[in-house]
Amino acid sequence: MSTILVALGGNAILQPGQRGTYEEQLQNVQICSERLAELVGEGYKLVVTHGNGPQVGNLLIQQERATDLTPSLPLHTCVAQTQGQVGLLLQLCLDNALGSQGLNVQSTALVTRTLVDGDDAAFKQPTKPVGPFFSEEYAQARMKLGETWIDDSKRGWRRVVPSPQPKKILELESIKCLLKQHKVVIAVGGGGIPVIEQENQIVGVDAVIDKDLASSLLAQELKLETFVILTDVESVKLNFGQAQETSISCLSVDTAEKYLCEGQFAVGSMAPKIQGAINFVKAGGKRALITSFEQLKPALQGKAGTVIRQN
Amino acid sequence: MSTILVALGGNAILQPGQRGTYEEQLQNVQICSERLAELVGEGYKLVVTHGNGPQVGNLLIQQERATDLTPSLPLHTCVAQTQGQVGLLLQLCLDNALGSQGLNVQSTALVTRTLVDGDDAAFKQPTKPVGPFFSEEYAQARMKLGETWIDDSKRGWRRVVPSPQPKKILELESIKCLLKQHKVVIAVGGGGIPVIEQENQIVGVDAVIDKDLASSLLAQELKLETFVILTDVESVKLNFGQAQETSISCLSVDTAEKYLCEGQFAVGSMAPKIQGAINFVKAGGKRALITSFEQLKPALQGKAGTVIRQN
Repeated sequence: MSTILVALGGNAILQPGQRGTYEEQLQNVQICSERLAELVGEGYKLVVTHGNGPQVGNLLIQQERATDLTPSLPLHTCVAQTQGQVGLLLQLCLDNALGSQGLNVQSTALVTRTLVDGDDAAFKQPTKPVGPFFSEEYAQARMKLGETWIDDSKRGWRRVVPSPQPKKILELESIKCLLKQHKVVIAVGGGGIPVIEQENQIVGVDAVIDKDLASSLLAQELKLETFVILTDVESVKLNFGQAQETSISCLSVDTAEKYLCEGQFAVGSMAPKIQGAINFVKAGGKRALITSFEQLKPALQGKAGTVIRQN
Repeated sequence: MSTILVALGGNAILQPGQRGTYEEQLQNVQICSERLAELVGEGYKLVVTHGNGPQVGNLLIQQERATDLTPSLPLHTCVAQTQGQVGLLLQLCLDNALGSQGLNVQSTALVTRTLVDGDDAAFKQPTKPVGPFFSEEYAQARMKLGETWIDDSKRGWRRVVPSPQPKKILELESIKCLLKQHKVVIAVGGGGIPVIEQENQIVGVDAVIDKDLASSLLAQELKLETFVILTDVESVKLNFGQAQETSISCLSVDTAEKYLCEGQFAVGSMAPKIQGAINFVKAGGKRALITSFEQLKPALQGKAGTVIRQN
């Protein structure tokens, strides 16, 4: 029985332009869960990971508004909160979809920590924007507390946090154990809760781990053959958005690295997906697929999407 | 190897008078985790459950302040968020305490759903107050949306939600599976996320399940011998707070039920603990202990706390 890991993009949960009501998120996840449940029906075991960008952004806004009544919690705790939130949503929708399809399989969502290196260069140069825009005055006050903020001249000031490389998924053993019991495992939400080792203790840090890189690492650690990244396009494009735009159906690792160096893929969007795919194949994975959830089934059959392989 | 379930009271995480900063919660949970890790050192397998009252209250306040920017999520989703939040905190502190004590055991936190009956009488009569106080105007507007609010004449209006009986812990199989792998399992946070079955689908509902009753149910379903409820007193008292106050070291189920009927125990505080203990012993459990975390070790040896047994 083959196990595949499917990484869900933020759009699977909340689409651009939506406000983020519970009903919107429920409906999006229901549609996507139907497709995922079909894979279980075809005999795959399944690990599902997910993004949390809009969810963590909303929590940061909510926290900020109520600091006079209740203290804000650190970013890594907010990531944990979104793992509960999105984990539950996926769990409900997946179990209902599995049940509707006559499958006696249930899902389980795990709070997942991702170990990063405290000496990662990213900690010296935070680049990942999180949360809402604020006034310069507010940003200056926060910078005095040690945070890094950048001036987005049009929209105001915004906090930036480090985005270090994922080194180890701390819940790996539990994930393996639940997969053996034929559970659909929901894990590594938002790239996992970033933690470092400090004087023999595990400590949460304020950072955001790229969810595609963390998902790739988990797929590597599980020694899977197939790693799937779902996004809002059916396949990877060359010259994206230009007149000569073309779809890529197959990429070797070497060519993928060449395109990545040339800047063919958008930073913070397609680039980390390609990097995650490259990392997976280089570590021994057979194939990484990038596609939309509508094309998931044909992509697994080699009939759609973009596949990244060794050669 | 004997497995015990320890239910942590809210005070283990946040003490009365504390504002709820991350540092406060971390310090409280660290102290408590040292005691819990010692049990693992003595050869017990461990399931840890926890309350979430202050945490869910804070989230409701934060949500309410930002409704112009981001939609509030339903109460059951907030429960899921607190399971991520407190689950992470316990996981970090337990793993660090276990490591410091030279134990090669790790913990895992699960998003846990608790099934309740959609026909539970509690849904017709919501009694459990949640979240902050509001003006009458606000309460009236929310009541038009179907919510129930009560007038606490001194402090304002407050939402009340149903507190139905827990019927089934949906993540039971996963919890068993992780216990077999010698994980310390953190589950049923805040009594679990309340869900009902509706037209063959599992659906989240806005309710609060008593964490002692849900913890008791999990201990029953796991067929454990010992169920421990940690609280802020060393033992159960008769005539609590009165001149004739006496500590109880041992209670039979019959006597416990008699005292409960007489109103000896505070509603929403000691009463559900006693009820949870009674339910556990009646379902075949050998002993339920109620004590403080300082007295946990002597209580397990029969030297402190209150034990509830069949006879």
